[in-house]
Amino acid sequence: MSLRIPTDLEIARDAAPEPLTSVAERMGLPPELLEPYGDHVAKIRLSALTELAARPRARYVVVTAVTPTPLGEGKTTITVGLGDGLNRIGHRTSIALRQPSMGPVFGIKGGAAGGGYSQVVPMERLNLHLTGDIHAVGAAHNLLAALVDNHLYRDNALDIDPHNISWRRVLDVNDRSLRSVITGLGRRVDGVPRQTGFDITAASEVMALLSLSSSTRDMRARLGRIIVAGSRAGKPVTAEQIGGAGSMAAVLSEAVKPNLLQTLEHTPVLVHTGPFGNIATGNSSVIADLIGLRCGDFLVTEAGFGADMGAERFFNIKCRVSGEAPDAAVVVATVRALKAHSGRHAVAAGRPLPEEMLQESPDDVRAGAPNLVKQIENCRLHGVSPVVAINAFPTDHASELEEVRRIAAESGARSAVCTNVAEGGRGAEDLARAVAEAAEEPSAYAPLYPEDAPIRDKVEAVARSVYGADGAEFSEAAERQVRACERNGLGQLPVCIAKTHLSLSADPSLRGAPTGWTLPVREARPAAGAGYVYLICGTMQTMPGLGSSPAAYGIDLDEDGEITGLS
Amino acid sequence: MSLRIPTDLEIARDAAPEPLTSVAERMGLPPELLEPYGDHVAKIRLSALTELAARPRARYVVVTAVTPTPLGEGKTTITVGLGDGLNRIGHRTSIALRQPSMGPVFGIKGGAAGGGYSQVVPMERLNLHLTGDIHAVGAAHNLLAALVDNHLYRDNALDIDPHNISWRRVLDVNDRSLRSVITGLGRRVDGVPRQTGFDITAASEVMALLSLSSSTRDMRARLGRIIVAGSRAGKPVTAEQIGGAGSMAAVLSEAVKPNLLQTLEHTPVLVHTGPFGNIATGNSSVIADLIGLRCGDFLVTEAGFGADMGAERFFNIKCRVSGEAPDAAVVVATVRALKAHSGRHAVAAGRPLPEEMLQESPDDVRAGAPNLVKQIENCRLHGVSPVVAINAFPTDHASELEEVRRIAAESGARSAVCTNVAEGGRGAEDLARAVAEAAEEPSAYAPLYPEDAPIRDKVEAVARSVYGADGAEFSEAAERQVRACERNGLGQLPVCIAKTHLSLSADPSLRGAPTGWTLPVREARPAAGAGYVYLICGTMQTMPGLGSSPAAYGIDLDEDGEITGLS
Repeated sequence: MSLRIPTDLEIARDAAPEPLTSVAERMGLPPELLEPYGDHVAKIRLSALTELAARPRARYVVVTAVTPTPLGEGKTTITVGLGDGLNRIGHRTSIALRQPSMGPVFGIKGGAAGGGYSQVVPMERLNLHLTGDIHAVGAAHNLLAALVDNHLYRDNALDIDPHNISWRRVLDVNDRSLRSVITGLGRRVDGVPRQTGFDITAASEVMALLSLSSSTRDMRARLGRIIVAGSRAGKPVTAEQIGGAGSMAAVLSEAVKPNLLQTLEHTPVLVHTGPFGNIATGNSSVIADLIGLRCGDFLVTEAGFGADMGAERFFNIKCRVSGEAPDAAVVVATVRALKAHSGRHAVAAGRPLPEEMLQESPDDVRAGAPNLVKQIENCRLHGVSPVVAINAFPTDHASELEEVRRIAAESGARSAVCTNVAEGGRGAEDLARAVAEAAEEPSAYAPLYPEDAPIRDKVEAVARSVYGADGAEFSEAAERQVRACERNGLGQLPVCIAKTHLSLSADPSLRGAPTGWTLPVREARPAAGAGYVYLICGTMQTMPGLGSSPAAYGIDLDEDGEITGLS
Repeated sequence: MSLRIPTDLEIARDAAPEPLTSVAERMGLPPELLEPYGDHVAKIRLSALTELAARPRARYVVVTAVTPTPLGEGKTTITVGLGDGLNRIGHRTSIALRQPSMGPVFGIKGGAAGGGYSQVVPMERLNLHLTGDIHAVGAAHNLLAALVDNHLYRDNALDIDPHNISWRRVLDVNDRSLRSVITGLGRRVDGVPRQTGFDITAASEVMALLSLSSSTRDMRARLGRIIVAGSRAGKPVTAEQIGGAGSMAAVLSEAVKPNLLQTLEHTPVLVHTGPFGNIATGNSSVIADLIGLRCGDFLVTEAGFGADMGAERFFNIKCRVSGEAPDAAVVVATVRALKAHSGRHAVAAGRPLPEEMLQESPDDVRAGAPNLVKQIENCRLHGVSPVVAINAFPTDHASELEEVRRIAAESGARSAVCTNVAEGGRGAEDLARAVAEAAEEPSAYAPLYPEDAPIRDKVEAVARSVYGADGAEFSEAAERQVRACERNGLGQLPVCIAKTHLSLSADPSLRGAPTGWTLPVREARPAAGAGYVYLICGTMQTMPGLGSSPAAYGIDLDEDGEITGLS
């Protein structure tokens, strides 16, 4: 007998998934609404949106977190565990998650489907291609790019300013060499030379747009509104004008349908879209949630990064679009994150935790409390009851876990220690009970700011209320760009503030809940198709690179053709 | 009542496809061997290769053509019609086709799934994404490119010569701006600047490799043999050395399985891989054929371009790899192609036929005969019985069709006039009977040249015997490259001669069967993973561009979310 702990892939492969039609049946989804896509994956037809509309609405729970360390706090595993836990205590529950990007799978991560006994299966499918939605987003995005360059190469009838083309290209790969490129070199027939670059597909506005569409028709209209460039006269040039929106919609006609998978414990999981968490919303799709909300007692969805990031956009962008009010918010915290927020330890991605951080120290946990307290408040700011989920690691001490619970209680929040990574849904039953209680309270959800406020005021509102800043300071360029957005009729859009996810502030090195600082807004860019204005407040990397020993080196097929090395 | 002729998309959408399990059942494929991928598309599990191995082998028919005009001669429609026709006269038949590339769908063509009443359905799926195989090829290809650039950016332990990196990137889009680019610009962390470019995904060596793999294990081994660069010492650097082959295999683990679709008349169609027809083989996959050959009485497969191109590679590369001998070859001819081969008319892509070419003129047809005669001979050269399929157009005259039949008869070849585009399989029953007769004759198939001949001799053999040239002339560079290939142990590979498909010669303007010319070999490049050496004999465009009015402008979704404008 081996005492070795099985890898995520081994656990996932040992699992016997339930036939997906049975999983769907428990959601009240008849087989006619499913399109099977290989074993244990299906797409859900969009006729579900109308066919299920009269059903009772599920409670809507968003899973967010304290400001994460570079290691991540296990938000996906808690989301999965909570779904399983709610099902175990008798509430019919579905989960909604983003599709992981394939690029990082071969870069640093090696996989992203939860972990341990809280996983989504089949994990190889989830991590690679799934049903091809990300590829479709890339194909639609790059088709538009080709049409823009072809317009320039032909008669440039729209008088596009070649130095003012904002539409780049995308690929789902970590490739630093593509960040900045010159295209169109060669002979006359090889196009017009200009400097541009590639982002990873998850950073495409098409991805954000897909995640915020509420129907195929809505998606088609949003595609038309994408701004690709400015004319020499300074007017925005759209995808509709370029003649690309219809074909992009055709390319996306399958990708607009959510995918159905399951957890190891057969809880239904709607996986759909994967927009970036800094320049985009970091939330899975509106369509998946609209369907999932008609499929049982609870829908648990995950928002990216901390409550100042993904949850803020969930409350102020996604829920505004969907018209659906959340009933509870789970704030995932870990002992190690609060210790890191004490400012007494340095934690870096790709490196093991510093030895002294593993020593028992409730005092370090207490020193990191302000971050948790602020993120709890950030849920309440939007009228939603917070529940603290403490993701327990084997190296945590009981006194430290207790300290986190005490901090939550002092903030008036329910809390539960979760051991679902090691134990499956059983380890999240306490959390499930706390969430079910919190969701019983009547929702007082309201967005933070009115749509018709000036863009600057919206940014100020988020900066002061959510980030704890003294205000926002706009560069001259940003001010000019904000004025242009408002002049072009985009002033009513919500804002998406692209700052670091590693701090409540705009400085990734500041731990806890920094005060006495001002949000520096460098640029303001319209995402007119997706439906928000995004503000650049720091250096946002939209194309990752590979490390010196990429995860790709360890991934292969075994003798039976099975994938090895994903984790 | 409207007299308007329905479009291909309308015909396709009006069709009621049979449940795919019934289609498979008639092939003797049990449902357990299928993985459904959305409605009316499935992947076939590779266990079929062993499970069906003991079944009787079908007759193997390759569909090729005269040297095509830029308009194409309707080879796919004849392939589809022949499959339907064989089924109608009582032979259980499957069809094997390449997957169309999505790039050209939005460029000039608008779609490629046959035409009229000889189509593969669902045509929207076939033309867009299908099951994502082309995207998977692109992802695997670009992952390797990222790993190569990352190797260079890190310690360059393999001492790669940055000026000798042959591995480019790929995208499935027509985008002239990407043909020649500089990557790695920016700051130090943004990679090493160098000049490179993108090809369309169909031109990727990974695509060719996938089409020539006979199992997952074979694919994995071939991936490792891909040569991506040369070291400063002049040694080839492989994907295995770069550490990319395992991950690429994981990315391709679904794409290696053939896809099952059906014709409008429910004939099974195996669609798998889509390698380019000039720098690659232009044939669908070995795996699809190995499976299809155990699924009935006949397997009809299509080879790209004329018999000097796709069929030559079918005989000398694909069949050598698969070990399967063809039983008959169909040479598709049209009145308009033979008229064009008279040299009396100019035909250009994207423009209507010249008016005078539509006038009745059996004399023009006769003047173009040498091309048909030579392409018939090219099948016989490999020991395979030819049958001429005359794809009749409404503008053809009876005397002209009769003239084509006479030319075929004079060459000792069976022939039949096909009206299946307008009538479906009924219009190809004569062809089906002729093919069935030809396939009864014992196959004398043999490749043209022995594997162990020097590369130069193989090229000479194809040039003289198949193209009708006086020989081949190698540039100094090509000679040096051939020596390098032989030095690096690649001398035993077959050759893939990349010349124009618009002439039997290397000059696209020469019609008929040109003689008195010499094949100019400019470059010799190893495709060590795919398993051939390719010789550049002309200007090969590996990344198409968009025209002044791309098909994309006419494609959209209608009110019901259905795709319009594909044809």
